[in-house]
Amino acid sequence: MISVILLGAGNVASHLYKVFHNSDTITVTQWYNRHIDKISTFKNEVEITDDLSALKRADIYIIAVSDDAIATVSEALPFQDRFVVHTSGTASLYDIDAKHRRGVFYPLQTFTKGAEVDFSNIPLCIEGLKKSDFKLLKRLAEGIGSKDYKVSTEQRKRLHIAAVFANNFTNQMYRIAHEITEANQIEFEILKPLILETAKKIQTMSPYMAQTGPAVRGDKKTAKQHLNLIENPQHKAIYKLLTESINDTHGRKKL
Amino acid sequence: MISVILLGAGNVASHLYKVFHNSDTITVTQWYNRHIDKISTFKNEVEITDDLSALKRADIYIIAVSDDAIATVSEALPFQDRFVVHTSGTASLYDIDAKHRRGVFYPLQTFTKGAEVDFSNIPLCIEGLKKSDFKLLKRLAEGIGSKDYKVSTEQRKRLHIAAVFANNFTNQMYRIAHEITEANQIEFEILKPLILETAKKIQTMSPYMAQTGPAVRGDKKTAKQHLNLIENPQHKAIYKLLTESINDTHGRKKL
Ligand SMILES: NC(=O)c1ccc[n+]([C@@H]2O[C@H](COP(=O)([O-])OP(=O)(O)OC[C@H]3O[C@@H](n4cnc5c(N)ncnc54)[C@H](OP(=O)(O)O)[C@@H]3O)[C@@H](O)[C@H]2O)c1
Ligand SMILES: NC(=O)c1ccc[n+]([C@@H]2O[C@H](COP(=O)([O-])OP(=O)(O)OC[C@H]3O[C@@H](n4cnc5c(N)ncnc54)[C@H](OP(=O)(O)O)[C@@H]3O)[C@@H](O)[C@H]2O)c1
Repeated sequence: MISVILLGAGNVASHLYKVFHNSDTITVTQWYNRHIDKISTFKNEVEITDDLSALKRADIYIIAVSDDAIATVSEALPFQDRFVVHTSGTASLYDIDAKHRRGVFYPLQTFTKGAEVDFSNIPLCIEGLKKSDFKLLKRLAEGIGSKDYKVSTEQRKRLHIAAVFANNFTNQMYRIAHEITEANQIEFEILKPLILETAKKIQTMSPYMAQTGPAVRGDKKTAKQHLNLIENPQHKAIYKLLTESINDTHGRKKL
Repeated sequence: MISVILLGAGNVASHLYKVFHNSDTITVTQWYNRHIDKISTFKNEVEITDDLSALKRADIYIIAVSDDAIATVSEALPFQDRFVVHTSGTASLYDIDAKHRRGVFYPLQTFTKGAEVDFSNIPLCIEGLKKSDFKLLKRLAEGIGSKDYKVSTEQRKRLHIAAVFANNFTNQMYRIAHEITEANQIEFEILKPLILETAKKIQTMSPYMAQTGPAVRGDKKTAKQHLNLIENPQHKAIYKLLTESINDTHGRKKL
């Protein structure tokens, strides 16, 4: 049994709590949040606290708080030489106070409270300074059915940038498509199968091979027509820049 | 039974041929392509030709050739008053020569030869000048299990732009993520669950609600760190512009 104490009650901590709670090999010893009301509905399932000095002993302390607060919270922990990890894609391993054994347990997925997540489909990027700590994180990932990847701090930072493109920026493409359909009395619904297929396609084909459309065809006439029809200047700028980017990737001449 | 003659042998025509061929209510009377070798493997299943003057009579002629060639091909058809449609998201209904009864049968999906497609999941945007022609296209869509949407030429043009964002530009986000992982010896594999989840999320939640990450959080520190780490100037420009776009959508201050 791996004993865990969770710190934080945001998107990530809430999902981790649920999946740890349902695991046969993991037990949540305590759940801390500075505002206890956020976790008080769980008080019959798990020991909750808003007092760092009341923290018990556990194999792993998981700090799932905002990136900016990781250093402060880890410093405020009233013990040392225990295994403390954060869940951030950007924060350094060294943001955790040096008095602890340090590690990272970064789930590469987009979490929203409410939306269900299936951890068996979530890659876990793990890092640990000591070999035994690293192994413990591997077992923790296994305990929730996740695939683990050994990723260095430098790699994790780059991976987070890649994830911003693959998730946040992709989602903004959906948003702009939504704005365009709404402005033209078209149901956004009609685009959903295309969006799903676009993501499914690259599960088995490289994004390079999967590209279609006017930009990769070098179809300047269509691109120009589109630019004339787009009224929003920001959408226009994005259309131009991304068409150029596709042109460059596929060795086409610019617009 | 609806009889169809297909013109063209590209991505769209090939997939249409397959699904029509398997439909109980549709028969492919002939398949035309200017280069007959591209369709010669089908010669035992369907009558093939590279000669427009040899075209038979059918309920619908579907011109699935490059956008630029629609006008020429429709003009070259040696008959009149028959129902001729194209499959383009951009071309006007009026690109089809006026001697025909005109229509549009635009499948809103990304097609690549080889990759399987499930037409029951493909919205079909249909347009027809005559009511009876419009109804025939509705039945054609039903015959392949697709949902049909009545979309005007103006709407279809905008929808195509929205699709460029939702598909081509989204796929380029994947491509850039791929470039970043490759440059840092990380398996692109690790991003695939995130990419799929991002697309799945907006099937039930608006892209506005689904947004996460540094830009929507107004986390300028992370955005600046990322910009410092990104070496490719084009990736940098895209990161900036899309961060601004997310900021604007969610009413955050700019970088
Ligand atoms: N969301 C994602 O998709 C995602 C994915 C992978 C990794 N991550 C990482 O996971 C971590 C948590 O992200 P999240 O999305 O769960 O954040 P979140 O939903 O915004 O929740 C932040 C949590 O941090 C706590 N907190 C903030 N400042 C604090 C402070 N000074 N002292 C104590 N607690 C403080 C908040 O406490 P209160 O409840 O008391 O306000 C809240 O429980 C971050 O490092 C993030 O980078 C997020
Ligand atoms: N690909 C998609 O994801 C997609 C999705 C929805 C709609 N569409 C639309 O569907 C149509 C076809 O697209 P596609 O992707 O199937 O194109 P494609 O794969 O590039 O194939 C183009 C076809 O057009 C033929 N063609 C080109 N110029 C011609 C000419 N002057 N005379 C006769 N035939 C000519 C080609 O003949 P050869 O084989 O002899 O070269 C080829 O068979 C376009 O209007 C496109 O906008 C495409």
